[in-house]
Amino acid sequence: MNILRTPADMQQRARELRAAGKRIGFVATMGYLHEGHLSLMRLARKESDVVVVSIFVNPAQFAPNEDLDKYPRDFARDEALCRQAGVDIIFYPEARDMYAPDASVYVAEESLSRVLCGASRPGHFRGVCTVVAKLFNLVLPDVAVFGEKDGQQLRIIERMVRDLNFPVRIVRGPTVREPDGLAMSSRNAYLSRDERKQAGLLKRALDKAALMYSELDMRDTKKIKESIVKVVLHGPDARVDYVEIVDDRTLEPVETIDRRCLIALAVYVGKTRLIDNLVIGGAR
Amino acid sequence: MNILRTPADMQQRARELRAAGKRIGFVATMGYLHEGHLSLMRLARKESDVVVVSIFVNPAQFAPNEDLDKYPRDFARDEALCRQAGVDIIFYPEARDMYAPDASVYVAEESLSRVLCGASRPGHFRGVCTVVAKLFNLVLPDVAVFGEKDGQQLRIIERMVRDLNFPVRIVRGPTVREPDGLAMSSRNAYLSRDERKQAGLLKRALDKAALMYSELDMRDTKKIKESIVKVVLHGPDARVDYVEIVDDRTLEPVETIDRRCLIALAVYVGKTRLIDNLVIGGAR
Repeated sequence: MNILRTPADMQQRARELRAAGKRIGFVATMGYLHEGHLSLMRLARKESDVVVVSIFVNPAQFAPNEDLDKYPRDFARDEALCRQAGVDIIFYPEARDMYAPDASVYVAEESLSRVLCGASRPGHFRGVCTVVAKLFNLVLPDVAVFGEKDGQQLRIIERMVRDLNFPVRIVRGPTVREPDGLAMSSRNAYLSRDERKQAGLLKRALDKAALMYSELDMRDTKKIKESIVKVVLHGPDARVDYVEIVDDRTLEPVETIDRRCLIALAVYVGKTRLIDNLVIGGAR
Repeated sequence: MNILRTPADMQQRARELRAAGKRIGFVATMGYLHEGHLSLMRLARKESDVVVVSIFVNPAQFAPNEDLDKYPRDFARDEALCRQAGVDIIFYPEARDMYAPDASVYVAEESLSRVLCGASRPGHFRGVCTVVAKLFNLVLPDVAVFGEKDGQQLRIIERMVRDLNFPVRIVRGPTVREPDGLAMSSRNAYLSRDERKQAGLLKRALDKAALMYSELDMRDTKKIKESIVKVVLHGPDARVDYVEIVDDRTLEPVETIDRRCLIALAVYVGKTRLIDNLVIGGAR
């Protein structure tokens, strides 16, 4: 396994691999790896000859009031996990090498990113699109795997690939969960023991919503959202940021579930903001 | 010579060429080709095995009040000129295949594009950056040649390549001029015989500015700009959009020429907007 530290080295290596006819599979991460990331790496492995994992806590996708500084980091552990997972290259750049002091070019998605996390975190998806475009140009992947847990991000990146014609195929990686259903996330490390117990309520609320849809034939999104909020608020330290049911393709709000929809929620448990989602209705 | 009409065909061919180890040289045009374009193709030829020319009048870089509909087009003539110039592939897509009806991802440069033509044409450079990013992803060039005549566009594309890490080397193509100095442009076709005579004043004004700098040691940009305006306005149908002297790298206004500067101007001759520029000062 190789660790490359500069954009120039990464791009040079990627060019050599492509010239040698290798298919490159790519997983973009912010490090502090967990089983969710490892499952994405296994998917990338299936689709390619060489697996590249980037580890970069991207400042451009954090607002000034967010958790950039305290975002958990442990490169030695990440390196060991990548090695075990059979990763070929870790791209581990520094922010000063990724962004020139006078950087002025951005990639922005202007429809899907207005809602859900985009409404709560202005500028977040512009930062995500910009860094993912940069990483695609540096890693030159044939295939890139993104997790369904970040459901809005996944759809925005798919849109970016379509609209900017990136020569990259996006593969969706299913959400990996803890035994109580909590979606794996590096931010789960922020939770106290008590908050950790409450965090399982997000998935329980989504599961109940799915049952209302499938077993009770409930189609009224207002009632389903009310049920989700009620379950989540069983946690004394839980505060809802948003609970939305939207068209799975356009992310526009839906009143009656008559097509494939995304149920998405963001909940603060204590000071930690957690997200999760589930697709219901229509054909997958 | 091959003519490819769809983005999918272009990207597929580009992938095959890259897989076969060919270096791709690229010239992006809006067609109605002239000697300026042909000089860019010759530069691309020098740097590559396969020369791709795109011909696409990009709606996204025209404002509603601009000349999209009457922009001159003559594909048969363009095809013949490309064939003579030894072009290997013409990429000639339709707008409906380049932009999905719900397209929502854009590339924007937010510093260099605020001034000069960017101030006169809001949204223009966002349209340029977005289509050039798309074309880079479809044509997969090693080298792309852009003309110095569109001086601000050239610098913005260089910035985009740097900031988004496109694996493309940009080559600058010198401006090609008519015998009286008028920079070649497809829009010159709009000029009446009388306007065409006056259009030569743009270059004459720039030449006089260069002489003031080199022979009279004039460093005061206010005085140089006044001289340029005076020469241009010898044309009875000339109206100045802007005359600016800016830092060649940042495009910020300069009062005293103590570094490499770009003199840039946009002038309406009748209803036709013409641009030209010249670099003075500093080391090239």
